[in-house]
Amino acid sequence: MGNLIEAKILKGFRDFLPEAETERALLTEKLTSIFRKNGFVPIDTPVLEYSEILLRKSGGETEKQVFRFNDNGGRDVALRFDLTVPFARFIAVHKDEMYYPFKRYHIAKVWRGEKPQVGRYREFVQCDFDCVGADNGACDFEILQLIKSCFDSLGIKNFTVKINHRGVFNRFLAKMGIGEFSEDVLRIVDKLAKNGKDDVIAQLRQLCSLHEVSSDVPEKILDFITPKSSFEETLSHITNLAGGPEEDTKRLEQIRTLLTAAKIADSFVLDPSVTRGLDYYTGLVFETFLTDLPSIGSVCSGGRYDNLTSLYMKEKISGVGASIGLDRLIAALGELGISTVNAAFLDAEILCLDEELLPHYISVATELREKGVNCEVFLSAKKMIQQYSVAEKKKIPFAVIIDEEAAKNGLATLKNLSDRSEFKNLSVTEIAEKILYQKKCQCQSKEDV
Amino acid sequence: MGNLIEAKILKGFRDFLPEAETERALLTEKLTSIFRKNGFVPIDTPVLEYSEILLRKSGGETEKQVFRFNDNGGRDVALRFDLTVPFARFIAVHKDEMYYPFKRYHIAKVWRGEKPQVGRYREFVQCDFDCVGADNGACDFEILQLIKSCFDSLGIKNFTVKINHRGVFNRFLAKMGIGEFSEDVLRIVDKLAKNGKDDVIAQLRQLCSLHEVSSDVPEKILDFITPKSSFEETLSHITNLAGGPEEDTKRLEQIRTLLTAAKIADSFVLDPSVTRGLDYYTGLVFETFLTDLPSIGSVCSGGRYDNLTSLYMKEKISGVGASIGLDRLIAALGELGISTVNAAFLDAEILCLDEELLPHYISVATELREKGVNCEVFLSAKKMIQQYSVAEKKKIPFAVIIDEEAAKNGLATLKNLSDRSEFKNLSVTEIAEKILYQKKCQCQSKEDV
Repeated sequence: MGNLIEAKILKGFRDFLPEAETERALLTEKLTSIFRKNGFVPIDTPVLEYSEILLRKSGGETEKQVFRFNDNGGRDVALRFDLTVPFARFIAVHKDEMYYPFKRYHIAKVWRGEKPQVGRYREFVQCDFDCVGADNGACDFEILQLIKSCFDSLGIKNFTVKINHRGVFNRFLAKMGIGEFSEDVLRIVDKLAKNGKDDVIAQLRQLCSLHEVSSDVPEKILDFITPKSSFEETLSHITNLAGGPEEDTKRLEQIRTLLTAAKIADSFVLDPSVTRGLDYYTGLVFETFLTDLPSIGSVCSGGRYDNLTSLYMKEKISGVGASIGLDRLIAALGELGISTVNAAFLDAEILCLDEELLPHYISVATELREKGVNCEVFLSAKKMIQQYSVAEKKKIPFAVIIDEEAAKNGLATLKNLSDRSEFKNLSVTEIAEKILYQKKCQCQSKEDV
Repeated sequence: MGNLIEAKILKGFRDFLPEAETERALLTEKLTSIFRKNGFVPIDTPVLEYSEILLRKSGGETEKQVFRFNDNGGRDVALRFDLTVPFARFIAVHKDEMYYPFKRYHIAKVWRGEKPQVGRYREFVQCDFDCVGADNGACDFEILQLIKSCFDSLGIKNFTVKINHRGVFNRFLAKMGIGEFSEDVLRIVDKLAKNGKDDVIAQLRQLCSLHEVSSDVPEKILDFITPKSSFEETLSHITNLAGGPEEDTKRLEQIRTLLTAAKIADSFVLDPSVTRGLDYYTGLVFETFLTDLPSIGSVCSGGRYDNLTSLYMKEKISGVGASIGLDRLIAALGELGISTVNAAFLDAEILCLDEELLPHYISVATELREKGVNCEVFLSAKKMIQQYSVAEKKKIPFAVIIDEEAAKNGLATLKNLSDRSEFKNLSVTEIAEKILYQKKCQCQSKEDV
C-alpha cells in the first residue's frame, strides 16, 4: 500500500477523547434541559451557506478568517463563523412557518481561521439563545433570566451579569457633541475592565484633542461609565447625564422590575461601561463574569439587535440574544473545580478471565441487565491490571469476577472498586441486589447534599 | 443598505425547524443512552481534515463527491464524508492514550456532494459505533447486541439483522475456481434482495460465460446464497459448500452461541447473500431490515474490517462497526407511526392578556417553577388565538389565564388545553397542585403501558 500517511490534525482543530467529549456532552445536556424547561426550542442550519449570505454584513476581519471555497458545482460557499447570521437567514426563509416571539437555542460548531493560540481554536462550539419578533422588556428579561438559570444549573455560585443600554450612552455622547465619533469612544470604554481607568482616560484625551473637543470631556465620559453603588443610583445618574428619561432608560427600569419579580435582581448589575464594542447591538447589552475567575473574561455575552434580517427581507424583525462559548465555559468549570461528570454510566464491569467463558459472562450480563444493573463484559482476556484500569477510566464502581470453577457453580465474586472490598460466592441475584442497594444509597446521599 | 440578498439554502442542504430538530435530538438522546448503558464512549473529530487523509483509500466516486478546497493557509482540506476514516486517523494519533477493546460511538454530520434526490442529502447525520482492538466473536457479538438494544429502545418491534461472513463466501468462490473475479460476483449477489433471483442468475451467467467458467456455477452460487430454514442449517450448508469448517464458520458459530446466551438470537438470521458489496469488510457483515417496512432497505449496516489504520501506522488494529443513517431511521419511524416526541417540555403557558401585567406574570411563573411546574410566560400581548396556537405547537397541556382583576386578587384560571376544561379563581398554589397531579397521573399511566 505504499508509504504511510502521517495521521495529523489541522492546526487549530482538535480531537475529543472520550472523557473530554463526555464532559462536553453532559454540559450540553444540562444547558439543553434548561432551555427546554424555559420554552426555548432548537433549530439547526447547514454548516455550509452561500458566502454572499454569510459575509455581506461582516467586516474585512471576518472575511479573512472564514473558510470559503467554490464547491464542485462552482458555488461560492463558506463554513458558518457564528450562529447568528445563519439564524437571520433561517428566519427570512421560514418567516411564514414561525410564531413570535420565537425563542430558539442552537448549540453547534462554528469555524474561524483565526491564528491559533491558547484557548482559541479554528473549530469550536457556540451555544446561542435568542428571543426574536418582539421588542419589549419582557424579551430582554427572558434572555437574562435564562442566563441566570443556566449558570445556576451548572453549579456556578458566584457570577454577575453586567447590563447596559446602548441608547443611553449614545444620547449622552450626542449631548456632549461627540456623537459623530461615538464608535471610537465605544471601542475605548469597552476596554475599561481590561485596561483600567488610566489607560481609558489617556486614550479618550488623545481622541478628544484630535477632534478638538473640550478637554473636560474625557473626565465626563469616565464619570458616565463608572457604576454607582446600586442599580437605581446608576440608572438615575446616567439618565441625568443623558438628558432625562427616554425609552432607553425606561427599558432598563422595566427590565429591573421584571428581574425583581423573578427574584433574581441580585445577579444583575447596571454597568454603563459595558458597550460590546462595535457589535451590531442597538439596545440592551450584557456580559457575564465569574466572580471567582474574573481573568477569563465574559463567559456569556449578547444584546438586542434592531433588525436581524434586514439583509434578506423588508419586514423588520427585532431580537435579543446571548452566546455562550462552550470551550471557555468548560475551561472555567475546570478551574473552578466544578465537574459535570458526576457518575459512571455503568454499574459493573464483568471481567474476562478466560475467553472460553465469554458465553457465560454474556449470560450473566443479560441477567444483570434484566435486573436493572448497567454492565459490560470485558471483551478479551487481557491482563487483569489492564481490565481494572479500563473500569477505573470509565469510573465503574464494581467488578464481577468469575473463574471457571465459579462459572460451573453459577457463582461470582463482587469487588467494590473504590474500597477494594470483596464479596465471594454470590449468586447473580445477590450481586444485582448488592449493586442496586449501593446505587440507591448513593442516589439518596446525593439528594441529601 | 442596497438590494436584498435572496435568503436561500444550498441544494441538498436543509434547515431543521424546531419540531424536526427536537425529533432528531430525542432520537439521538435515546441512542446515546443505550450506548452509555452498554459501555460505549463518545469521541469527536474535526469536520475538516487533510484531504490526503480522507481520500487516500477511497475510490474515484468518493473523490468526486467530497467537499474539498484549499484553506487560507493553502492546505488541501476536505469535509469528512463518513465517520470511519476520521476514526481510523483518530486511533493512529491517540493509540497510546487508548485502551482496547475500545468501544466508541460518534453521532455527527457528514457531507457528500451527491446528486440530491428524495431522502438523499448533501449534509446528513450518521451514527456509528465500533469496537476495535480485538478480533474475536465477542466483539462481533457486542455490536450486534447493541443494534438489537437500539432498535428495541426505539420501540421498533419487528426487525431482522441479516448476518454473514465474507470469509466463507470467498472460500466457496475460490473452491469454484472463480476467486479472481469474486468482486464482480459480490457486486451481483449483493443485489439479490433488490433485483430478485432471475436477475442475479442472468447476470451471473453472463459473467461466467465471459470468463469461460462451467455453466453450472451460477446455479451453485445461487444455492450457496439462499438461506435455509434455520441458522444452523444454513451454516452447515455453506460450511459444506466452502470445503468444511474453518475460522470463519467457527466465528459464525461462536457469534450464534453468544447471541443465544444473551437471549436475542431470534432477531438474527444467517443470510449468505449479504456481502456488503465492495466495502472494505473482511469478516462478519450485516444489514438490518424492518419487517413492516422492507422497501426502505437496511437501516443499520456494517461489519468487521481487518486493518482499519493501515494507511497511517504499522500496528494492525482490527475492528467491527455499524452505522445507522439517522435520516432514514427518522423517516422509517415516521412511516411506522412511532413518535419519539412523547411529551411536552413545558407544563403550562402563562398567557399575556396585557403587557402591563408582565411583572405579575413573571412572578407567578417564578412561584410555579419553585413548586416544580415547568412554564413559560407568553412575552407579548398577541391575540389569544395566536397564543393558544403557540401553546399547541409546543404541546403544552395547560394555559394559565390572569386578567387585571385576577392579578389584583392573586387568582388565576387554569385551562386544560386538551379537553378545554377550565378551573376558575385558583390560587397559584392550587394551580401548581392541579398541574402536578395531572402530570403524575400521566407518568403513571405511561408506566402502566
